[in-house]
Amino acid sequence: METEGGEGPSRGQIYSQMAIGYSKRYRGKIQTIPKVPIRELGDFSIWYTPGVAAVSMEIAKNSDLSYEMTWKWNSAAIITDGTRVLGLGNIGPYGAMPVMEGKALIFKYLGGVDAVPIPINVHERDEIVRVVKALEPAFGGINLEDIESPKCFYLLEKLSNEMNIPVWHDDQLGTAGATLAGIFNALKLTGRTPEKSKVVFVGSGAANIATVKLFRAAGFDLKNIIMVDSKGILHPEREDIDQLMKNNPWKYELAIETNSERRRGGIPEAMEGADILIAASTPGPGTIKGEWISKMEKRAIVFALANPVPEIWPDEAKRHGAEIVATGRSDFPNQINNSLVFPGVFRGALDSRTRKINEPMIIEASMELARFAEEKGINPDYIIPTMQEWEVFPRVAAAIASKAVEEGLARIRLSKEDFYIHAKEIIGKNRELIEKLISLGYIEDIKR
Amino acid sequence: METEGGEGPSRGQIYSQMAIGYSKRYRGKIQTIPKVPIRELGDFSIWYTPGVAAVSMEIAKNSDLSYEMTWKWNSAAIITDGTRVLGLGNIGPYGAMPVMEGKALIFKYLGGVDAVPIPINVHERDEIVRVVKALEPAFGGINLEDIESPKCFYLLEKLSNEMNIPVWHDDQLGTAGATLAGIFNALKLTGRTPEKSKVVFVGSGAANIATVKLFRAAGFDLKNIIMVDSKGILHPEREDIDQLMKNNPWKYELAIETNSERRRGGIPEAMEGADILIAASTPGPGTIKGEWISKMEKRAIVFALANPVPEIWPDEAKRHGAEIVATGRSDFPNQINNSLVFPGVFRGALDSRTRKINEPMIIEASMELARFAEEKGINPDYIIPTMQEWEVFPRVAAAIASKAVEEGLARIRLSKEDFYIHAKEIIGKNRELIEKLISLGYIEDIKR
Repeated sequence: METEGGEGPSRGQIYSQMAIGYSKRYRGKIQTIPKVPIRELGDFSIWYTPGVAAVSMEIAKNSDLSYEMTWKWNSAAIITDGTRVLGLGNIGPYGAMPVMEGKALIFKYLGGVDAVPIPINVHERDEIVRVVKALEPAFGGINLEDIESPKCFYLLEKLSNEMNIPVWHDDQLGTAGATLAGIFNALKLTGRTPEKSKVVFVGSGAANIATVKLFRAAGFDLKNIIMVDSKGILHPEREDIDQLMKNNPWKYELAIETNSERRRGGIPEAMEGADILIAASTPGPGTIKGEWISKMEKRAIVFALANPVPEIWPDEAKRHGAEIVATGRSDFPNQINNSLVFPGVFRGALDSRTRKINEPMIIEASMELARFAEEKGINPDYIIPTMQEWEVFPRVAAAIASKAVEEGLARIRLSKEDFYIHAKEIIGKNRELIEKLISLGYIEDIKR
Repeated sequence: METEGGEGPSRGQIYSQMAIGYSKRYRGKIQTIPKVPIRELGDFSIWYTPGVAAVSMEIAKNSDLSYEMTWKWNSAAIITDGTRVLGLGNIGPYGAMPVMEGKALIFKYLGGVDAVPIPINVHERDEIVRVVKALEPAFGGINLEDIESPKCFYLLEKLSNEMNIPVWHDDQLGTAGATLAGIFNALKLTGRTPEKSKVVFVGSGAANIATVKLFRAAGFDLKNIIMVDSKGILHPEREDIDQLMKNNPWKYELAIETNSERRRGGIPEAMEGADILIAASTPGPGTIKGEWISKMEKRAIVFALANPVPEIWPDEAKRHGAEIVATGRSDFPNQINNSLVFPGVFRGALDSRTRKINEPMIIEASMELARFAEEKGINPDYIIPTMQEWEVFPRVAAAIASKAVEEGLARIRLSKEDFYIHAKEIIGKNRELIEKLISLGYIEDIKR
């Protein structure tokens, strides 16, 4: 539990101070370096003029060759307009940059992907569409990040449909994928099935709306789902339903299709008799009260995902009858973390050269995460792999890639085993390079 | 001289084959790598959440801090729409990528700059403006590349005016800067002054129009300049003058202001009595004939810059009376090469954090290049440094940066000496890293 009392700074304050200090010292988290040898200037006759002209002509004749002859096969743009950065809200694209750089770091370290942080200075949704579509020749994939809802739903749908490279919005899909992975194993441990489970979603932002949609695709019945937003339970007769239809058709659709018993009220009313609670709302503690947990079904599953402080502390949830508790934090068991998902997803999407990342692919990634944990032996404190378990990233990559083949979306068709070997090699080589650069002092180490 | 005869492939064909083969092997010329140490996942608590939130808040309060705490201080986007790629014409953004990657390689190797190749899929000029402006938060500078004329003039003007980061179009400014550097020393060697020199420009594309403008700023008199395009000498009574005014006001303006004696005709008529010929037009040989050189002033200066084959071979030009000949090629003396200019220009622009790169700054860079050669000892076969002379890049950087300070455009104000030391250190460190990566095998060497 976070200790905020006493004289010294909290752990959060220490990280903040370190982050500010080290950001000023290192001035950026990524850099570009050559992938090709330059031993003398004559080599530029190959990499640049005159030799490069022949490469350009080949690609001009067949643009698919850009995957064979440029870095496109392994690159991604991390795009944000800075309208919903972490829990900080609309702080703009400049403030968003450090987060995007951190993401780029994880892309490389866990996925071997060359990702470029691109915070952009446009905010109107169709302007964003135009800018991102313009970048299609430059990258092998697009990762949308920290864009406010409901704009993010529009962007993901529109860009996925109109671009020929995979588009991902991590706040939607990464969170949904990680949540579903944990739920798969929680269901096994508590003897439940998706079809029959009653699920309450507290919070109706990007993460939970995407998660509900993914749950539906994974076999959950919308009739058994109840969603709650800041105004209470979603149902078709809510006062703001017309406004919702106009401003947020994604949420509107779920207001119509969920909650078949037309329950009304707030969080406690929603939770009564539920099997599963997925909270992705206001940081706690106290957003979810212990006594509300007590009114859930026996052997309740509670995911309290707000950061930095979960909606209810795990020990309190357990005291009130929760059998399995997951949070967004690494210092409790069962961390639900996008970073378990997106590095492998992009590795697999790029390696299979899929045009899209569709729901069956994400579900397959979630199942692979769940299987991975199951192979190690699941229990209420271990329903999902931890970030320390490196092998999980190429496993997710292989799951995504082989499902892309199955779905007819892949342009590279290998066996799952071969995708796995390939992904493991790329990720491993990159991690080795990074370690080498640190040990040689080219990346200055932090003295501890 | 290029040998195209005989049984074997020409040098050009060999480079083409090597470029295609190695591009398929290396699959991209650049990659991203971390600049910060990651020894364990806990480090992501500094580089990513939760620590990064504090960094984002700092920058959100003061966006200038993005230069202190992110890679913006050292990054550039290389933007093209692929409408004029090398001499290949409008081959589109996919075909342009290998060239942009090569440019990114040079940016890093000679300038220490983290440059990202971004070929874009929009072509209408105001669409390009919108996309590039949207990228302002993401990069410290913009390098436009291989964009057709006259669109490129509009883009450079508009983006320079409307963005707060330096915007450069290398096909205009890099070529102009390198040409002016060579001309400075050619004038010294032949006892001429800018004011009195009669200059003929053959070719009125991006390079020569930019060069004429830079020459004017450097003291040449437009009255003494004659420009020739594919339809002959530019003058105010030309049949197409109204069309020109409408479609290419930049060229129109020069058609009005140059050629005060209202000379008419083609290249030979233009060259009669000229001191200097700057040809940036159709690859030769034979575009410029020897007998036309004979009719220039004594001790004529001939820059035949077309690639891969100059408008006239240097030996032929000399046989007909040229005293100094420069080309675009590294296998003849006096190579006029943008790559002498742009790496140092960006290094200096980034290090001084200038908002613009204006004409006085470019002239200063040209003068520094000229001085550098002069210090080594100029002669008709050495009027400009060669690419082998590494020290020239930090020298150009320091010249640009200190001039930015003088012009009131810099946000970092150091002495020229300090800018030089700083630039030399960054460039040197990067080159050392690249060499190390090759020697360790992380960048696989080409076996020779």
